[in-house]
Amino acid sequence: MTGEFELIAKLRQQLSEFPALKVGVGDDAAVIARADGSSWLIATDMLMDGIHFELAKTDPRLIGRKALAVNLSDIAAMGARPSTAVISVALPKGSNVADPLHEGLFELAAEFETVIAGGDTNAWDGPLVINVAVTGELAAGVEPLQRSGAGIGDQIFVTGPLGGSLAGHHLTFIPRIREALVIRSVVEPTAMMDISDGLAADLHHILRESNVGAVLYSDGIPIRESIRSEPNALDRAMGDGEDFELLLTVAASDAKDLVSNLPEGVDLFHIGEITASGCELIYPTGTRREISPTGWEHQF
Amino acid sequence: MTGEFELIAKLRQQLSEFPALKVGVGDDAAVIARADGSSWLIATDMLMDGIHFELAKTDPRLIGRKALAVNLSDIAAMGARPSTAVISVALPKGSNVADPLHEGLFELAAEFETVIAGGDTNAWDGPLVINVAVTGELAAGVEPLQRSGAGIGDQIFVTGPLGGSLAGHHLTFIPRIREALVIRSVVEPTAMMDISDGLAADLHHILRESNVGAVLYSDGIPIRESIRSEPNALDRAMGDGEDFELLLTVAASDAKDLVSNLPEGVDLFHIGEITASGCELIYPTGTRREISPTGWEHQF
Repeated sequence: MTGEFELIAKLRQQLSEFPALKVGVGDDAAVIARADGSSWLIATDMLMDGIHFELAKTDPRLIGRKALAVNLSDIAAMGARPSTAVISVALPKGSNVADPLHEGLFELAAEFETVIAGGDTNAWDGPLVINVAVTGELAAGVEPLQRSGAGIGDQIFVTGPLGGSLAGHHLTFIPRIREALVIRSVVEPTAMMDISDGLAADLHHILRESNVGAVLYSDGIPIRESIRSEPNALDRAMGDGEDFELLLTVAASDAKDLVSNLPEGVDLFHIGEITASGCELIYPTGTRREISPTGWEHQF
Repeated sequence: MTGEFELIAKLRQQLSEFPALKVGVGDDAAVIARADGSSWLIATDMLMDGIHFELAKTDPRLIGRKALAVNLSDIAAMGARPSTAVISVALPKGSNVADPLHEGLFELAAEFETVIAGGDTNAWDGPLVINVAVTGELAAGVEPLQRSGAGIGDQIFVTGPLGGSLAGHHLTFIPRIREALVIRSVVEPTAMMDISDGLAADLHHILRESNVGAVLYSDGIPIRESIRSEPNALDRAMGDGEDFELLLTVAASDAKDLVSNLPEGVDLFHIGEITASGCELIYPTGTRREISPTGWEHQF
């Protein structure tokens, strides 16, 4: 859509005009530097009935929860801690979703020590819309983990199984705040993001921002159990999206450290390696197939 | 609506749980204290087609502009400077409003040195929805201007004419950032807010938060020229809303200073005085009528 392209061009232009804006577009959250060397982050996501959830089929608590969770996932993807959130809702007139929606949201906020600092509640004849904006914090000297830092030879990891999220996981997933901080306590990833569009699409975001390529190991990609027996399971793990797991790259010299030093309860799957260019899937047989940003080329 | 009530109760509860949250609900923006004595603010507003604007009849540039302007007005109401904003939009599928909408928004952002730090662009079959969250700054030692500080004997002012805003002013108003800072450079208001619900309703917000009453002078209330000749002009100035002028109270000893020291270009209308209780309109004849939160009691 030209609208989004135009917006991104304008957002990029601001990076040169406002030096405090360290990361302003093309990443999971914006990062603004403070004079004391620390920085803070801001991200926003809007969820609409029929697009990001189906109100008629869903507990409103889970909708409120998701609205905050996708934003917390953005903060996790930058390797930061969340601090505050503000909530806006457009409620269908006469509906009674407001209370459970806010309950689900407040519960998750408490779990991740995020203050709900304010809100804007509206009613209308349209479908339910909920917007959350969240801020986060990075201590002095701690850099945000961007998409642009992956280097050739880096090893690629994800924090959990992929695919089939829309059957329920997209409403109940745990934002990977804790995992991101644990990972950073062991090694410093060279790039990180959360998987919302799907592994194939989101990996391409890292490749484009870092100007590199990648190979993924077909037998390394973790597939959600609920879809594992399906004939197109790998396809779905690559393309379904809304997994909200972390996708990260780590220098080869750090990769072993990371796997051997992770505390229990944090999963990490080694799925591939950064290369100079291209994006391919390698089978145990040695066969290679190209991965496109929208999924991968079907050749069966 | 019970939903909003429940939300406000929960928001208030957080004030005791998170001491850094200086102002968390019941004001124009939330205020969060920093360790260095400065503080930062966050506010959010969602605008929906058919409620806050009519897309079919309105230049999308003005819709984008308004979405930011109402948020800047919230920051102005706290006596602060804006710093960043994030934008979310739900665009009607196939519409081409995104570019002009963002243009209007970016123009206003540049005018008030506000960085657009990020956004979330979506498309759907529903009506246009736009949400902006904005952050602001208060230097160390500078307190936010809240609704709760009005004291008996304080004088009440507004920064511009009221009523009839929905004919156009609500799309083109200038957020009173500059005026708020100029006022603060002369005197420290005891309470301040922006007029969005209408003078009568918003004055009651100050009265309730400050636990005081007020009298307004019928001949002191500035009425927008476009409605001045209408028979119910004063009624409309009290109740129409979406004026986005500042409503402020100033200690009686400061009021003269304020009026005599204002630089040219900042308007200030003296409309009344804070009392112990009640809320009345006084006519030049001495007649008094009660003002209700939803407007005022019609007795003609």
